[in-house]
Parts: sequence; structure tokens; C-alpha cells
Amino acid sequence: MNKLVNQDLEKLTEDILSSYAKDGQTQRIGCMFLPSRSRIVEIVELTRQLLFPGYFGHKLLTAENVRFHVGNLLSKLSGDLTEQINHCLCTERGCTECHDAEKCQADAAGMAHEFLSRVGRMRGSLLLDAQAAYDGDPAAKTISEVVYCYPGFYALTVYRVAHELLEIGVPLMPRIMTEHAHSTTGCDIHPGAKIGRRFFIDHATGVVIGETTHIGDRVKIYQGVTLGALSFPKDERGRVIKGLKRHPTIEDDVIIYANATILGGETVIGKGVTVAANTFITESVTADSLVTHEAPKLQVRSKRHKS
Amino acid sequence: MNKLVNQDLEKLTEDILSSYAKDGQTQRIGCMFLPSRSRIVEIVELTRQLLFPGYFGHKLLTAENVRFHVGNLLSKLSGDLTEQINHCLCTERGCTECHDAEKCQADAAGMAHEFLSRVGRMRGSLLLDAQAAYDGDPAAKTISEVVYCYPGFYALTVYRVAHELLEIGVPLMPRIMTEHAHSTTGCDIHPGAKIGRRFFIDHATGVVIGETTHIGDRVKIYQGVTLGALSFPKDERGRVIKGLKRHPTIEDDVIIYANATILGGETVIGKGVTVAANTFITESVTADSLVTHEAPKLQVRSKRHKS
Amino acid sequence: MNKLVNQDLEKLTEDILSSYAKDGQTQRIGCMFLPSRSRIVEIVELTRQLLFPGYFGHKLLTAENVRFHVGNLLSKLSGDLTEQINHCLCTERGCTECHDAEKCQADAAGMAHEFLSRVGRMRGSLLLDAQAAYDGDPAAKTISEVVYCYPGFYALTVYRVAHELLEIGVPLMPRIMTEHAHSTTGCDIHPGAKIGRRFFIDHATGVVIGETTHIGDRVKIYQGVTLGALSFPKDERGRVIKGLKRHPTIEDDVIIYANATILGGETVIGKGVTVAANTFITESVTADSLVTHEAPKLQVRSKRHKS
Repeated sequence: MNKLVNQDLEKLTEDILSSYAKDGQTQRIGCMFLPSRSRIVEIVELTRQLLFPGYFGHKLLTAENVRFHVGNLLSKLSGDLTEQINHCLCTERGCTECHDAEKCQADAAGMAHEFLSRVGRMRGSLLLDAQAAYDGDPAAKTISEVVYCYPGFYALTVYRVAHELLEIGVPLMPRIMTEHAHSTTGCDIHPGAKIGRRFFIDHATGVVIGETTHIGDRVKIYQGVTLGALSFPKDERGRVIKGLKRHPTIEDDVIIYANATILGGETVIGKGVTVAANTFITESVTADSLVTHEAPKLQVRSKRHKS
Repeated sequence: MNKLVNQDLEKLTEDILSSYAKDGQTQRIGCMFLPSRSRIVEIVELTRQLLFPGYFGHKLLTAENVRFHVGNLLSKLSGDLTEQINHCLCTERGCTECHDAEKCQADAAGMAHEFLSRVGRMRGSLLLDAQAAYDGDPAAKTISEVVYCYPGFYALTVYRVAHELLEIGVPLMPRIMTEHAHSTTGCDIHPGAKIGRRFFIDHATGVVIGETTHIGDRVKIYQGVTLGALSFPKDERGRVIKGLKRHPTIEDDVIIYANATILGGETVIGKGVTVAANTFITESVTADSLVTHEAPKLQVRSKRHKS
Repeated sequence: MNKLVNQDLEKLTEDILSSYAKDGQTQRIGCMFLPSRSRIVEIVELTRQLLFPGYFGHKLLTAENVRFHVGNLLSKLSGDLTEQINHCLCTERGCTECHDAEKCQADAAGMAHEFLSRVGRMRGSLLLDAQAAYDGDPAAKTISEVVYCYPGFYALTVYRVAHELLEIGVPLMPRIMTEHAHSTTGCDIHPGAKIGRRFFIDHATGVVIGETTHIGDRVKIYQGVTLGALSFPKDERGRVIKGLKRHPTIEDDVIIYANATILGGETVIGKGVTVAANTFITESVTADSLVTHEAPKLQVRSKRHKS
């Protein structure tokens, strides 16, 4: 440590402590129970090991050892989930000491159990998604490759896990999970979105799917697509009102190509619609339509004869 | 190790060594003092622990232990910062041995001290940013959630830290920091940009804010927005000239929706302007305007009756 | 572990095991040889240490110790590459026990050797790319900064490594490598794309370059650019046909600005063309043209006088 700071250490410390005293929202001193992001990321990875055995985690599974592997993973996940859900519940309710620790713990244990009982169903849903990716992407050589390598499939896996937790009533954790996937893949799916079966996101980078989006079955979207909000009604203090449907509805069998932006809670993209790349849509589109920009009026000028 | 390579190890080694000898810019043999990226990322994380105590790092802070926590963090950060700033200064000045190691060390210690004395002020600025995110995003349930989970807020935190270091005169380190945030969030804010108070970036993915951008107060931007350069004047050797203002100026109270691209050093987006999604702007816009594409002329054709 | 799950552990385990039994594609029980992603990422990092000595890994290289450093890295890389290529070959051929382990091992060793013998050539190619980045970006202060910090250069380094492996005939590993770079940089370059000399990707976020793209020399592209597929011919079962050229050809000296989308296997962007930001192109463009949107017809309305 350098001398300069050493001499000033007391003063620097006082300055920073007084800055903490001034504002209670950017510090959590005397607050317990903040969930741990690294532990929650670990829960995502353990759940993935349970969902796709042999792909992630233990690689040498056999018909003989798989039962022990699953039992062991369930034990570990159950403990970790209960602990972190407990912290999420406490954080949600306020940051001081917990007044009914037993009830919180029991609620958390119940939610963890409910989640683990849904693993089989999530597997079924993710198999259909993997199949959709394989069918829809000429670059996919096998379904294994999709499960093991595709970032869009990873983002979707984390979304489906986070969405189940949200449905079960777990606060905070679902968003921490999807933000982890967002950071890893560039694909930001809010855990509150409702997404049907056989969903495929190609390339994934830059995709944003907002909290109140509804997506039907067999929908396919490409990189850079935003399903977002158009504008926000504000309260008398000028702050946006929370809780309304702000994001679009995408019906079955829709394809949305790269970098299209679709906005608004009342915007409905009808069944079977194809949306071209780079389009910008804020109104509903009837079923079985093809949406493009008016003939792509590009200007192509020669750079050779500048006159 | 396999036999094939073992036999050829001498030859492979010679080939690679002779490739090193040919070019001095893609190797640093005999060069000391390159700063360590992993140590600089650790500095970012320690600074974040100082900025938002109880959120990151030590989670069980109390009124009693927080003083020791802060003193300890300051000691550690001061040493790490001095060491890495020293390496950055030496790298900037050339890669051979340092001729005035004491001066470099003293400069580095002074810069580290200056940075640490600004932590309180950075906290004040970041609180306003967190408040802006909470007010502007209907999906944000609490300010804590913004601080703890929002990728745009993370990118902005790293930018504000890196920008202070740049102002203090630290070379290289600021860019290493913002590239780390870029990698984590998909949001690329150059440390040289000037950004006012209460700035909010929603979703963050794909945002690019160039080196010479100026942004006023209470500005809100969405995913995929580029504030970029239009074209580059070149010198007689055909290389772009460095150091000019190449990126736009965004005045107070501007909102820029998803995937808009605004280019050019003389482009000024006036106070209170709203820019619609997917627009492409290369000229200035007067205050209090709404910029959209000419009526979004989308072609919607039925796919059922192809004639 | 909580009581609730403890009591139900048997039942939960049975449910999950029966879900594994139902589908063979989302589990790998009794399958050996899946390559390890973390080991492959380590191979990328070791290769980078070999490509750019002193920048990554060992930082205190001298004329004396560099020979030992290179010999040691080659030994390590050779062993790791052989092992993981072996796993990739086995996975590609099916997931049961290997019937000719010696042949697989020998094939893998030969491929590893071939790859290592190309390191010098890759260095030459990457030096030209670094030079192109320095020349093309006014924010780049030195070539060192490009090598050490630029995400686009990182994505390109991983692509060039992965492309060599693909040319040598290594399955699976190239894609795992580029998906790692994709996750780190937001830039998705398929290892199958063909990219010429002096390529520069600025900012990198959101760039997608498809499997059958051809790119000439001295091409420069910006964030958010997609070189993608237009639509896919399908087989009688409605699945897309694999293996056709689906992505565009970009000739020498082309510049493509931010967020442009260029689609289609027959689309050729001629030599020397400049493509403006946010354009959407599905047809070929003749050499030396400038492609923009028809005069950017933006509507700018005052928000003050709403009548």
C-alpha cells in the first residue's frame, strides 16, 4: 500500500462512511438475507445437469450410476434452492431481521419442492425447443449440437427454468437467472414473458423479449429482434405506471427476421405472419400476412462518376 | 503428449520463434509492465464493493463492522490501483525498462489516491442513475433490483469509474474496464464519452456510445442504439485522423428508442427530443421534436391469395 | 436439505429417471467421449498465448526464456488438442464405445500436429487484421491496444483458429470455440465462413456472419451487421435443406456500417461498395456503389404545438 493513501486512510474512510449515511438505497448495512448471485448461477448450472444428464456436469453416466447421480443432484439442489429462495423472500419483504424465520424457511422449502417436481415437464418442453432449432437451422448438424452449443437454446433453457420459479411465486431469483443468461448470450428474455412450444431463437445476440410479451407455438425469431414497449402511461408524479401489458402478442407459427422491432401491448401479430428483417411495427397485423418495408427503396449510386 | 508432435517439437518451436522474430507488434518479448486484465477486473469489483456496500462482496455489514470493511477495502484498492496504474504508465511510455521507477510509482500512487477521494461523489452520481432506471422502467420493482441486477446499470457504473480514471490521466486501464463491461453486458460505452446525470440505458444489449459523444442530463436510451461516427477524415497515407469530435451531442431530456442509429460529430439532438425506434439520423434535430420515419410504410400482403 | 424433499426424494428421482428413459436426445447416459467445453476454451486461451506471446499468459518473456515457454506451450497444447479432437471425432461418429481407439487417437494426433504447424501463418494473418483495426479506428492509440483489448479482434482471432481446425477436418470443436467468442463479445462468426485478409469489425456487438458467407480482403464492418440467410428451401417433410450457400458474398474493400442487414446466398456486394447504416439488402450491388436508404425521410414534428 502506498504512503499517500496510508496517511489519508482515516480521512478517506470517514468521507466514504458519511456518503453511506446520506443514502440508504445504495447500501445494505445492517440488512441481512440478500440472495447470492453466484449461488443462483450455480443453481442454474445444477438444474441444467438435471435437465440434460451427460451433457453438463458428470460426463460418464451409465444406466447403473445415473440413479445416484440424480438423487445426489436433487439433494444438493433442494438445499441450495431452499436457502436462496429464503433469502429472496426475506429481501422482498424488507431488509431487517426476519420475524418468522420458520415460516419463511417452510415456504422456501415448499417452493423448492414444487420446482423440482416440474423438472420432467420442463425436459419435455425443452426437447420440443431443441427439435425446433434443429429443424429450423440448416447449420445445425444434430440435436446434440443444439443442446450443447446453441446460445439461443441456453437462453431459452434459463428462461423456462426462471419462468417456472416465477409462476411458483419466487421473487428476485428469476430475474437474476435471466440476467445471467442475458450476459452470457446477449439475449434478454424477461422471466415474466409467456412463451409457447417449439420456440427457436437463432443467433440470439441482441434479442429483447419484454415482461408482458405473449408468444404462441412454433414461433421463430432471429438476432436483434425486440418485442418491446411503445410508451408508458405515467402517474401524477411523472413516473411510469407499473403492471400493465406493454409488450406485443405473437400468435402461432410467426417468423420474425433479424433486427425487426415490434412494440406495444395492444400489437398483435396474427397466426402465420412473416415479418421481414429490420421492419418496425407498432400496429397489429392480420393472420397469414407478409410484412415488409415498402419496396426496399435503396439508392445505389456509383462512386466513380461523381458529378 | 502425442509422439508425432514430440518428434517435431524442435522444428515447431523454431518455426514459431522465427515468426515472433519477424514482427515486433504482436509479441511482447523483453517488454515488462503490461497491466493485468484480471487484476483490473478485480479492481472494478472491489470498487463496486466500496460503492455499494452490502450488495457486492461482504454481505453481513453492520454499523459496527462497516468502518473496518471500508478501511480494509481502501488499503487493498490503493495498493492494487497503484501497481496497475504504474504498469499502464510504463506501457504507455514504451515497453523497455523503466528509467525512473520512483517517479512512475509516485505518479501512480497520486492517481490512485485522487481516484479513491472521488468515491463519494461517484456514489452520488450513481444513486441518481439508479433512481432514473427505477422511475423509467415499469419492470423495476425496487431500486435495489436496479443496483443488483440491471446490466445497463452495471455498464454505467463501470463507465463512471473508468471515466474518472481517464480524467485523472490514467492510460489504458479505463478502456480495459469498459471492454470488460462490454463483454459482460453487450453495452460498449467508451470511457472518453461525457455523460450527464440521471442516465438510463434499458436492456443494454448492443448499445454503442463512441469516444467523443456528449450526453446531457435525464437522457434515456434503449437496446441497440448507436451513437457513432459518420465517416473519418483521412491523412495523406489514407489512415483516419485521430482526436476529432466524431460522435453526436445529445442534449438534456432526450429519449432514444431501440435500434436507432445517430451518427456524426456535428449532429446535435436538441433538448427534449424523442427519437423513434430503428431511425437513422445524420443531421441535427431541433429541440422538443419527435423524430420518426415517414409514416411507417409497411407492406402487408396476404400469403393466402398469391396471384 | 429440507425435510419435504427428503421424504419425496425417491419419488422425484423416479420421475426424473422415467423422463430420461422417454427421450434419448436430451440425455447422454451410457455415451462416452463428449468433448469438454471448458477444456476447449482453455485450448483457445493457450493458442492465444502462443499467437501473442507476452500479451496473454506468461508476461515476463525474454529472449532467453521464450524458447522454453514455446516448447512447453506446444507440449501442453498438443496433448490437450489430441485428447479433445479425439472426443470430437468419437462424438461425431456416434456415442457408444469406440471400436478403433488407436485409429481415432492417431487421427486426432495428426490433426493436432497439422494445426500447430499453422500457428506461424495464423500469426501473419492476425497481424494484418490488427493493422487494419489500428488504421481504421480513430480511437485506437496503438496496435498493442487492439491486440490486448479489442473485442472484435478477439472474435476474429478465435474465428481464424476455429476455421483452421474446420479446414483440417475437426468436427464440433470449431463451433464450440466460436460460440465461446460469441458469448464473450456478442459477435457470432460461424467457423465455416471464408474471410480474407485485413478484416476489421468495430465494436463487434451484435454482428452475425453466417456459415456460407464469403468475405474478400480489406473489408470493414460495424456493430449489429448481419450477413445472413434469406429463406430456406425445405424438403418434403418441411425441414430446411442443409448444405447450400445461404449467406452473401462480400467482395474486396467493402465497408458496411452499423446495423445493416444483408441476406441471401446469391447476394453479391461488389468490390469497393459502401453500405450505409441500418440498410436492408437482399439483392446484389455492383462494384464501387454507395448504398443508402432513399433520402432518409424522417419526420420531425415539434412536440410544443400539438394541434
